[in-house]
Amino acid sequence: MKRRDFFRKTAIAAAGATVLSPLSSMAGSDRPAAFESPLRSKAKNIIFMVSDGMSVGTLSMANMLSERRDGTLCEWMSLYHRGVVSRGLMDTASANSLVTDSSAASSSWGGGVRVNNGVLNVAPDGSRPVPILQKFKAAGKAVGCVTTVPITHATPAGFCVNSDSRSDQPGIALQYHDLRFDVMMGGGAEFFSTDKRKDKQDVFGKFAGSGFQVAKTRAEMQAIDAAGEDAPILGVFSQNGLPYALDRENDDALKTTTPSLAEMVGTAIRHLQKNRNGFVLQVEGGKVDWAAHANDVGGLLYDQLAFDEALATAVAFAEADGNTLVIVTTDHGNANPGLFGATEDFEKIIGFKHTNDWVLQGIDRDFTANQVRERIEHAQGYAINANEAIQLLSHYVTDRDEDGLYNPYKLPFADFADIQRKYTSVGWASTGHSGDHVEIAAYGACRELLKPFVRNTDLHYLMLEVAGVQR
Amino acid sequence: MKRRDFFRKTAIAAAGATVLSPLSSMAGSDRPAAFESPLRSKAKNIIFMVSDGMSVGTLSMANMLSERRDGTLCEWMSLYHRGVVSRGLMDTASANSLVTDSSAASSSWGGGVRVNNGVLNVAPDGSRPVPILQKFKAAGKAVGCVTTVPITHATPAGFCVNSDSRSDQPGIALQYHDLRFDVMMGGGAEFFSTDKRKDKQDVFGKFAGSGFQVAKTRAEMQAIDAAGEDAPILGVFSQNGLPYALDRENDDALKTTTPSLAEMVGTAIRHLQKNRNGFVLQVEGGKVDWAAHANDVGGLLYDQLAFDEALATAVAFAEADGNTLVIVTTDHGNANPGLFGATEDFEKIIGFKHTNDWVLQGIDRDFTANQVRERIEHAQGYAINANEAIQLLSHYVTDRDEDGLYNPYKLPFADFADIQRKYTSVGWASTGHSGDHVEIAAYGACRELLKPFVRNTDLHYLMLEVAGVQR
Repeated sequence: MKRRDFFRKTAIAAAGATVLSPLSSMAGSDRPAAFESPLRSKAKNIIFMVSDGMSVGTLSMANMLSERRDGTLCEWMSLYHRGVVSRGLMDTASANSLVTDSSAASSSWGGGVRVNNGVLNVAPDGSRPVPILQKFKAAGKAVGCVTTVPITHATPAGFCVNSDSRSDQPGIALQYHDLRFDVMMGGGAEFFSTDKRKDKQDVFGKFAGSGFQVAKTRAEMQAIDAAGEDAPILGVFSQNGLPYALDRENDDALKTTTPSLAEMVGTAIRHLQKNRNGFVLQVEGGKVDWAAHANDVGGLLYDQLAFDEALATAVAFAEADGNTLVIVTTDHGNANPGLFGATEDFEKIIGFKHTNDWVLQGIDRDFTANQVRERIEHAQGYAINANEAIQLLSHYVTDRDEDGLYNPYKLPFADFADIQRKYTSVGWASTGHSGDHVEIAAYGACRELLKPFVRNTDLHYLMLEVAGVQR
Repeated sequence: MKRRDFFRKTAIAAAGATVLSPLSSMAGSDRPAAFESPLRSKAKNIIFMVSDGMSVGTLSMANMLSERRDGTLCEWMSLYHRGVVSRGLMDTASANSLVTDSSAASSSWGGGVRVNNGVLNVAPDGSRPVPILQKFKAAGKAVGCVTTVPITHATPAGFCVNSDSRSDQPGIALQYHDLRFDVMMGGGAEFFSTDKRKDKQDVFGKFAGSGFQVAKTRAEMQAIDAAGEDAPILGVFSQNGLPYALDRENDDALKTTTPSLAEMVGTAIRHLQKNRNGFVLQVEGGKVDWAAHANDVGGLLYDQLAFDEALATAVAFAEADGNTLVIVTTDHGNANPGLFGATEDFEKIIGFKHTNDWVLQGIDRDFTANQVRERIEHAQGYAINANEAIQLLSHYVTDRDEDGLYNPYKLPFADFADIQRKYTSVGWASTGHSGDHVEIAAYGACRELLKPFVRNTDLHYLMLEVAGVQR
């Protein structure tokens, strides 16, 4: 992945961009009078970064992988090591549970109110707090979201909209059209395209017709980036979630067609920073959560490192800019994975070429046990035994629906993780979210305002305070 | 447990003690000339607190239990909330593994060198670094350790001795005699008493004969505390580990005979603070680790809260004293537990009267399934079903050695945890240590010297630096 090279390139690009459009050190003068007082602006830009569903074991193992593979701390830990962040633990509960889901978690930040799991900025009393990116847009700032899962998914949506159900992604896509935010990029084409939507609306066409710059491939995103037009950007690069970073890295076609999270963040920042009033950007490493649900260690750790690259991009910008706050955290733990055995087992993960998702998606019921073993050895570098291969194969015979069609959602992720544990020594406590307090850190302007123990809702008011935007 | 009452009492006691033996605000003047320079004294006293084997999920759930039961944050989180600590994450690896054991972990702090798992301050190159409490004693400070497991166990031993094997607890007990530290309290009578030692030495007698004040019960400890003599204290209150806090709390006999960790800490501080050069005390909540190994949620969370009471005692002293650094951390994660379900499931733990250990130790093969169910309902307030009871009972029939005697080390802890998970929604990723980076915080004098990301060995040098003691 050549993270260090990438980091340097990004740092130079960001610094160059700053030279081209110089930033005033105080942003207050550019803001509408209504927002001049009583709060005073302290940070012009905010980049809010969420590695979704990241238990502390995920961060720890990604850092260990970075150290073992590259000889360097990951960016997140490097910021700690350099002593340039404020740190906290965050209580992640929702209104109705100690264990939140992503929609309630993002709503707590986005609306400043704890809501029940499953809804977006609809409080238990029925009130609908204004989502934070709407507040920032009204204050004259550029705003946007970037994610590796559908852009209509819970975490970006919690900063943008009110909705009675996080599942209403087709409706959320339409809300995004009307909100006209400056950058929205991720996956989720199925919620925008005529052929996949139940209502047959051409939402892509609607965005294009309203003057959005629409990108569906990495090349189209790069072209928009290079052109530097002011029109808002919609980037949707896959039907649903983007590929796992590990699978993308080892597939030349995917690398060409799909941007990395760090690339999306670079494009987003270059676009957003043109606003003289500053910007607020949410960045989500959404498939960290999906990998945790699947107990997919390759998916988990390489997507965490891809998120870490994106963090490096954000920090490089903030460092050059001097007037940007970067918040980095997660919305909740998931599966509480950990390394529970030998170092040499863990080091096998350095050689991984593909995720468990890739392995299991590619098996069908006509495979022999030996073919299963070979596929795993090719993807992950170790040979399971024949009994284990047969155990995996058994799921492909029994788990099908009445039409005889295989159901991809019944892939034997948990079974494979159990088998894999013998080879990697990575264990999991669950396939669901945990109630753990989670890691949060702040870098850059106003970082000292982050308290060491916060409730998720506190972040809403912190962001407004540091930007000098009224509640 | 009336933690708040206890805290107030302790705070008053500690403040009172301070008035009786006033402390100079700068300790340098009392120290031998050899330690005057080049380092300058910054903190007179250090209290180093270790909740052994505490994954972040353990801390989080203990805090949630405190909030749900008492309506207040636990002391550890309360310090964060008050913004009076410096925080870090710590890399816990040993010389030969990303997953440390307690002896290598404590040696990293105690000797400043990473050693292989299993040994105490014996480096891979065969060198034997001087353990930190020996350094502090040589510098004129009072020193000691307090724990809920045998005082000869790995975590206290790593601050005190060099040993080729952590298992040589009988030998470590003899080393303690010769070291003549000021306070050593915990469990482990089997390593001190004639009838349990293979060499039949009367180590208790040896300590008493050398002028130690020896306590074997809570009352004897309190009498020594009240008398206030200067002679060093050996307190050993159980054959091996002390009872779990939850079992002790619900057993009047145990409450009378065995001190709580907080009580031991109070006694230790009152004794150690008489030294005008200051003191260094290690405090270990050792059974947090044992409970994690056993996936015993009641043992885990109530011992974490008992550790938290001890932390409150230490902080109350440090607050009154103004010249004390309190470090609070763990040596490694263990089992990475988490809450993975409904809040009301978690709240069942508030009603627990006994640990899984208590439940399983009290079952024998003559029990009926119904008796098993009744025992669990009495201890933990929920009724398992008949099949689950039979499943547990099956271990009592099959797991016995050839003499027909039941082996207590084969109690079905993991099986019980699996069953219990349906009722509490607490899950576990393993029954062993994890490689997670862990929580560390510093309160009081020199707390700003704790960096946000540290390796375990850094703590050795941090302690020497803050106390102005040469390496």
